[in-house]
Amino acid sequence: MTFKVGLLGLGTVGSGTAKILLDPAGRHPLVKELEIAKIGVRSLDKPRDIDLPATCFTTDLEAIVTDPDIDIIVEVIGGLEPARTLMLKAIENGKHVVTANKAAVALYSDELFTAAEKAGVYVLLEAAVGGGIPVIEPLKQSLCSNKINRITGIINGTTNYILTRMKNEGGDFGDILADAQALGYAEADPTADVDGLDAADKIAILAALAYGGRVDRAQVHSEGIRTVAAADIAYADSLGFVIKLLAVAQRCESQPGETEKLEMRVHPTLVPNDHPLASVNDVNNAIFVEGNPVGKVMFFGPGAGSGPTASAVVADVLNIAALLQVEKGSNQTGTRSLDPLLACSHQHECQVAPISETVTRFYVRLIANDQPGVIGFVGTCFGNHGVSLESIVQTHRKDGSAEIAVVTHDVQEGKFRQAMDELIASKEQINDVAAVIRVL
Amino acid sequence: MTFKVGLLGLGTVGSGTAKILLDPAGRHPLVKELEIAKIGVRSLDKPRDIDLPATCFTTDLEAIVTDPDIDIIVEVIGGLEPARTLMLKAIENGKHVVTANKAAVALYSDELFTAAEKAGVYVLLEAAVGGGIPVIEPLKQSLCSNKINRITGIINGTTNYILTRMKNEGGDFGDILADAQALGYAEADPTADVDGLDAADKIAILAALAYGGRVDRAQVHSEGIRTVAAADIAYADSLGFVIKLLAVAQRCESQPGETEKLEMRVHPTLVPNDHPLASVNDVNNAIFVEGNPVGKVMFFGPGAGSGPTASAVVADVLNIAALLQVEKGSNQTGTRSLDPLLACSHQHECQVAPISETVTRFYVRLIANDQPGVIGFVGTCFGNHGVSLESIVQTHRKDGSAEIAVVTHDVQEGKFRQAMDELIASKEQINDVAAVIRVL
Repeated sequence: MTFKVGLLGLGTVGSGTAKILLDPAGRHPLVKELEIAKIGVRSLDKPRDIDLPATCFTTDLEAIVTDPDIDIIVEVIGGLEPARTLMLKAIENGKHVVTANKAAVALYSDELFTAAEKAGVYVLLEAAVGGGIPVIEPLKQSLCSNKINRITGIINGTTNYILTRMKNEGGDFGDILADAQALGYAEADPTADVDGLDAADKIAILAALAYGGRVDRAQVHSEGIRTVAAADIAYADSLGFVIKLLAVAQRCESQPGETEKLEMRVHPTLVPNDHPLASVNDVNNAIFVEGNPVGKVMFFGPGAGSGPTASAVVADVLNIAALLQVEKGSNQTGTRSLDPLLACSHQHECQVAPISETVTRFYVRLIANDQPGVIGFVGTCFGNHGVSLESIVQTHRKDGSAEIAVVTHDVQEGKFRQAMDELIASKEQINDVAAVIRVL
Repeated sequence: MTFKVGLLGLGTVGSGTAKILLDPAGRHPLVKELEIAKIGVRSLDKPRDIDLPATCFTTDLEAIVTDPDIDIIVEVIGGLEPARTLMLKAIENGKHVVTANKAAVALYSDELFTAAEKAGVYVLLEAAVGGGIPVIEPLKQSLCSNKINRITGIINGTTNYILTRMKNEGGDFGDILADAQALGYAEADPTADVDGLDAADKIAILAALAYGGRVDRAQVHSEGIRTVAAADIAYADSLGFVIKLLAVAQRCESQPGETEKLEMRVHPTLVPNDHPLASVNDVNNAIFVEGNPVGKVMFFGPGAGSGPTASAVVADVLNIAALLQVEKGSNQTGTRSLDPLLACSHQHECQVAPISETVTRFYVRLIANDQPGVIGFVGTCFGNHGVSLESIVQTHRKDGSAEIAVVTHDVQEGKFRQAMDELIASKEQINDVAAVIRVL
């Protein structure tokens, strides 16, 4: 039984996908049943190292998504449009869709999954989060018996690469970003990565799967790593932490009768050295999931790249082909009924708590006038707002000022910010708030 | 649509399973569709904290596996018999089977999967390896596009707990084993765990899934941790390694035309500190998978316990229920066609290479007479058999003898053993081979 695949895009991920499909030896026997029917590209003139007849290639992507012979569309062109329109048209035409497009899925999940449910087709997206790391299907299928309480992920390879090098080399963000761009680990416009927007797309997707409700991407609080200084990485190290850009989706504690809310946030974080996420370095990603009754599990691996991402894309294609084979083999006569674990059929929207309500620890680095009583003043300001301190260290700087590093206990962000406002208001004591970073 | 579950056994995993099924809030909506129809127990008199009517309980396990009302049998009684017979009878009666029984699956996979294929039912076993860690389904479904080259796992919690404590406390195996037994981390008869037999069962299962062929459990080479000495853990530490009990299933390099073979082995291993497996401590498990094109991915989490194992058991039940819902919803008329990614239909047997053909690095600790030329003699013996050395360190002991720690480069085990035989033969130079441990 052969299944026909239409491939939209032949860039990094598209080429990787085609290579797997054209080289089935040593893989699951079902790979042999997949046939690339059409590949949509921008230009027919570009030389390609893909061994397929010229008739397979076309610049008419719409003709692929409406082609009655094609069973499964693989969307790897990326970006919002025309990806969204093409996926919707494919769905309308009864085709299953596999996509690696986290931005489009995070923004248009509502539209895409509603259309998919109506048309009785699957939209699978393993490659959209964590590249080659199996995490979407495990969340849908292997952890489906759990009540998920928290997902904490390192899900952007570029920022993890930069932070790893900053730690190892003691360098500054700007220099290492420039070097990462030269080496191809960061884009010419690094905004989506370094400002946490890409991680926010991905955590919105993971949260929707884990908590069974849609998540409004606009409500994900995101802070990037531009302000992380070499000094803070060194301080963190001396305190037993590494700094990582974490994406967090967490069930808030709620009273009976209260609407359940989620904390949804992306920000640099001090991670204790003995936490499994602390040793995830370079471009690797990892997703740490806490659930009841499973406890703590982690998925680790390469978060990007042609091969890893294509591995996930083809896995999705195979999962759909397997279900189509079951259908055809068992002589179905009714309308297609979708696998409730693989289809995303939830309709409600998850409530997201405002960032002021989230609870976490904070690390703060202050530059103060080196005068008697400054430590007492800092302690009093925090105490006035119910912020309890875990540690406070003062060091003297060459310029005569004092540097004070504080780590708080868990505190509601709103209260913490009030304490910080009071600190800052006192110009004669505190010269500068050099850093405010959350602590896991 | 309700699906009826027959539960065989109400011990640690069985109780955990029942608790999830009776508390669906916050989990996937499909959990609500699962009903515990019968629970098979050894005695009806034992008090239970499971909220089900007394009519649910029976000591007649055979009546459960033949009950026409039951869709899915969960086998969590463990051991070889009557587990094997009950599973086979359930399959014959057209029931799907979910099991956590690694020993029975490793030994009887041939019989079980042949029967399941014939009867058109699933036998799922996520809980058999790695407790709550999703690894079986990810291997079957999320990594199915890959050619797997190597699986390296810490898949026995008891031995990992003992080795972690030996490292942290500098204690000896015997003392810590006794303490682990008192604390319930090791069984009264610890043989299956500490001699590597449990890990061998599990790696045989993982290899069958990863390489698409059956693996003869008897051909898995296994060595346990009884001989690991505190001195070796200290040496390993000074060389930048930790000692872990690893289970390895690796594709051997083969020439074109040669039959492909697997290395299948369980043994204590020096793991470099910067390897992701090195920081997997206590009762945690982790499975490190290398494939093409995915690269290196790792699955980490709790390898045992009531909650984690039950999480995996119920996930399997839900996966079967999801497929049954598709069947019923789409009005199937033909015989059931099984999902080719979830069913284990491979018929061929993987060839396993004899341990003498496997290639790895070795760490050796020798006690020698402290006399001129002994280091030269050791180097010559290894050199005579083509064993190249990575490092060699000699220290003097209080009793006047010398301790020599050697780390080799990659070498075929057969050649290494020949060199060791030559070393040992020379009684006037080498008093004792204190340790031989493989190096990752």
